[in-house]
Amino acid sequence: VPDPLASLREEIALANRILVHEGILDAFGHVSARHPTDPSRFLLSRYLAPELVEPDDIREFNVADAEPVRAGERHYSERVIHSCIYEARPDVMAVCHHHAPAVLAFAIAKAELVPVFHLGAAMGEKVAYWDSQDDFGDTSLLVTKIAEGRSLARALGRHSTVLMGRHGATVAGNSVREVAFRTVYSCRNAELQIQAKLLGQVYSLTPGEARMAGSHNTRSGPLGRAWDSWVRRLHKAGDFPKTGATKTRKRPARRAAKLSLAQKRRGKRSRKN
Amino acid sequence: VPDPLASLREEIALANRILVHEGILDAFGHVSARHPTDPSRFLLSRYLAPELVEPDDIREFNVADAEPVRAGERHYSERVIHSCIYEARPDVMAVCHHHAPAVLAFAIAKAELVPVFHLGAAMGEKVAYWDSQDDFGDTSLLVTKIAEGRSLARALGRHSTVLMGRHGATVAGNSVREVAFRTVYSCRNAELQIQAKLLGQVYSLTPGEARMAGSHNTRSGPLGRAWDSWVRRLHKAGDFPKTGATKTRKRPARRAAKLSLAQKRRGKRSRKN
Amino acid sequence: VPDPLASLREEIALANRILVHEGILDAFGHVSARHPTDPSRFLLSRYLAPELVEPDDIREFNVADAEPVRAGERHYSERVIHSCIYEARPDVMAVCHHHAPAVLAFAIAKAELVPVFHLGAAMGEKVAYWDSQDDFGDTSLLVTKIAEGRSLARALGRHSTVLMGRHGATVAGNSVREVAFRTVYSCRNAELQIQAKLLGQVYSLTPGEARMAGSHNTRSGPLGRAWDSWVRRLHKAGDFPKTGATKTRKRPARRAAKLSLAQKRRGKRSRKN
Amino acid sequence: VPDPLASLREEIALANRILVHEGILDAFGHVSARHPTDPSRFLLSRYLAPELVEPDDIREFNVADAEPVRAGERHYSERVIHSCIYEARPDVMAVCHHHAPAVLAFAIAKAELVPVFHLGAAMGEKVAYWDSQDDFGDTSLLVTKIAEGRSLARALGRHSTVLMGRHGATVAGNSVREVAFRTVYSCRNAELQIQAKLLGQVYSLTPGEARMAGSHNTRSGPLGRAWDSWVRRLHKAGDFPKTGATKTRKRPARRAAKLSLAQKRRGKRSRKN
Repeated sequence: VPDPLASLREEIALANRILVHEGILDAFGHVSARHPTDPSRFLLSRYLAPELVEPDDIREFNVADAEPVRAGERHYSERVIHSCIYEARPDVMAVCHHHAPAVLAFAIAKAELVPVFHLGAAMGEKVAYWDSQDDFGDTSLLVTKIAEGRSLARALGRHSTVLMGRHGATVAGNSVREVAFRTVYSCRNAELQIQAKLLGQVYSLTPGEARMAGSHNTRSGPLGRAWDSWVRRLHKAGDFPKTGATKTRKRPARRAAKLSLAQKRRGKRSRKN
Repeated sequence: VPDPLASLREEIALANRILVHEGILDAFGHVSARHPTDPSRFLLSRYLAPELVEPDDIREFNVADAEPVRAGERHYSERVIHSCIYEARPDVMAVCHHHAPAVLAFAIAKAELVPVFHLGAAMGEKVAYWDSQDDFGDTSLLVTKIAEGRSLARALGRHSTVLMGRHGATVAGNSVREVAFRTVYSCRNAELQIQAKLLGQVYSLTPGEARMAGSHNTRSGPLGRAWDSWVRRLHKAGDFPKTGATKTRKRPARRAAKLSLAQKRRGKRSRKN
Repeated sequence: VPDPLASLREEIALANRILVHEGILDAFGHVSARHPTDPSRFLLSRYLAPELVEPDDIREFNVADAEPVRAGERHYSERVIHSCIYEARPDVMAVCHHHAPAVLAFAIAKAELVPVFHLGAAMGEKVAYWDSQDDFGDTSLLVTKIAEGRSLARALGRHSTVLMGRHGATVAGNSVREVAFRTVYSCRNAELQIQAKLLGQVYSLTPGEARMAGSHNTRSGPLGRAWDSWVRRLHKAGDFPKTGATKTRKRPARRAAKLSLAQKRRGKRSRKN
Repeated sequence: VPDPLASLREEIALANRILVHEGILDAFGHVSARHPTDPSRFLLSRYLAPELVEPDDIREFNVADAEPVRAGERHYSERVIHSCIYEARPDVMAVCHHHAPAVLAFAIAKAELVPVFHLGAAMGEKVAYWDSQDDFGDTSLLVTKIAEGRSLARALGRHSTVLMGRHGATVAGNSVREVAFRTVYSCRNAELQIQAKLLGQVYSLTPGEARMAGSHNTRSGPLGRAWDSWVRRLHKAGDFPKTGATKTRKRPARRAAKLSLAQKRRGKRSRKN
């Protein structure tokens, strides 16, 4: 009896922790997913540092206004980043908002982030740029109003990644895993682009290469291979989120995380040790 | 029966260890707080590397002369950094002195450190600069005399952060948590500013943005969210300081660290595992 | 009754994990070795992230066409990188393909990677350069066809290391240990060359120095000293691969990894603790 | 019944592991000390990666010819680096030879390494420079002959640190702790100098400041504070070397490492947990 909603909540908690563990998120930033059966809702943690998020902390919000379905708790102030992208892009199933240093450097220098290696092409052929100053003048830079979220979503357009001037970046995709992959490898790409610039000229991928490499690397094979290694690191670090009910703890954990065969095998072994 | 002094000593020990764990302090640097009920005194560890500080190591010192209330032990030679800021700034409740690499680079290059992202605005709209050479000529660079401490406090003025040429930085705030947050995010800001400069021009926050972003990010919500994640990392690394008496160890630990709800919940769970 | 094939499979699993642990491989990249008794075959893991590879995952492939000896599983798409180098270079007994950041920066900037310290000379006096765009135009950048693999092998020529434009690098050697050493120290060399360039001019080794230093550092002494320290780190991190059959677990593990005397002694001690 | 020779062997093993843990040494590099009662001899590990060195691995060598007092084992080929400095400098009681990246970058760019912060002054007011090419032309860059060691010692002169072109650095001092401190903070200084250069001009310490700051920071207080924190990290990481005989294991360990009061207290507590 698989429960897609429970599975997705566990996957969101996992993605939060993976992105902390891979150096992308710190106490701030968040990962969401569109509700698996009701496209007018999305799932996001309540107000918590990402490394503390458990599946039980994932709440439902309305795409229309970013408000929680059930009120009474504190929530992230930047929920409109997520809701407005789900509103504008029916194809988007997951969103990550982050402040990873290498990508943020481009958002401070207004420098163009371009794919410089095959895995970096996962961020999309072109990265969009948005700055709250342009439409809204002086703000706290936080994107908290629907008008701000819609402005950001317009800047994202059909792309997958949008830099937010002096603030961070937002990444969209058709699954939590794709968004995690896209987020991690856009950061690796940014680090590489800075280092290559220090050495001289940056030779980026051609549009054709970026299209083919991006398409190849967001297939289930590479996504699963990366996800398996990130999950293993979480396990080893003791950072795996709580999954399933306490009394049936082991089985739901395996199911929910959608572990690949390789991961399952590893899991069994480590339990033996 | 809450004991604000005991709580504060535990929070100071925590902040010392958090700042080591986040890469800000090494064997040197220190965190202090003004005495919770006697504003003419402040609390600071005796002579120890920050990662070794326990609540029992926190001593009381006089703001007037930086001398310990009870003599007989070795103390940091730079206590006047703390005492002279408490003397000049009645609003300041906590101080951190550090030599974090990214911030120190600005204090070696005499380069202006400016807010380049919303969280960096927590360091204040403007960062002050002081160099011992200007008033005192050749010294060991350590700030050990009251005249030196007062010169530094004058340079800090109404700001929150002062760079100390070829030496480090000192950060002031209205709570230990605010000072920890300000210290961590001024370092992240410095790292980002260096990386952005490598890419070309640095587009910093406008004064209005810096004011609004700084004000937002030093509220209890963001401070608590960051503190919770730092505390969790300490716990996981086995670096949490000893708290409370041995026989009632678990409960005072939870109280003293002023754990948020999220943190408390996490703590309970990890105890179950 | 030593089993050279079993030993080699264990050494390949170890090398995969070592190169992850030393920051060279992430979820992508792979290490292979020529079959110890049949030079027309080579050994490579099935489709897995390197940090998950166990000796049991190592499969046999034909040098002639990069196809697995036994079909029915998913495999890396870039097997021709390995097969075509074994085909062109009978002296090569092991190959590593990776995307380590420092080396990749040179492959993005088309900058010459040169030996700048004695240990860096292990990568060879000269590093070759290849770009898929030159012979094949727009591709996904992955090297998946025999014609692509042969083009890469021609660029490698008699050298030990070839940069792959906007993609990564491939390293060849006469043993798994030599390839691991060459891979690690070419990355350290790349990091140093970037840092030295930031300081001004880069003074590299003369051809004579590079030849002598490269020859010295790929002897069994230095290779074993480095391997011992990498193996120790894996052990400490709990990342050592499973070795031997379960019932005779301890002894085959020691044999298979070809632990040096020093390593054996350490192993015994840690078992006592 | 203190045994100064046993204590010193334990301190050398500790320093080897500390310098690995602090990112200075990898599989290569070594730390030695002059024999505590016979100035014509010095103590150095046999041929091992530094993180594997135990007190039992420390051997005695003659200052006159760098040969071991008892033959029959493999030793580091660069022993003359140590012997020739002990020969030329009766005041030197300990030596470290390393290839730490930040310092090595200066030895590749022939850039002047200067004290840029108070702790960096521990490396000495002036850092000497030597290149094997000048006196010996093309070599493997390893310093293995007495003539090479004496040339290096002449370049070191009365200074504490000598850069070795395209190779590394060697650091001398009057105790193992001073050499460890000097080594760590020369590397931190090098990292800072590179970062400050990226920001613009580097404002270094004046000669007077460097003299006063260097003198202050190599006193027993700062040396002990840093040593205590490094030892604690080793303990926590499970990297503390074996000390004393097995049956009296706990007490000799505490004595031998010359733990400060703070460290002793910490040790007792962690044993309780």
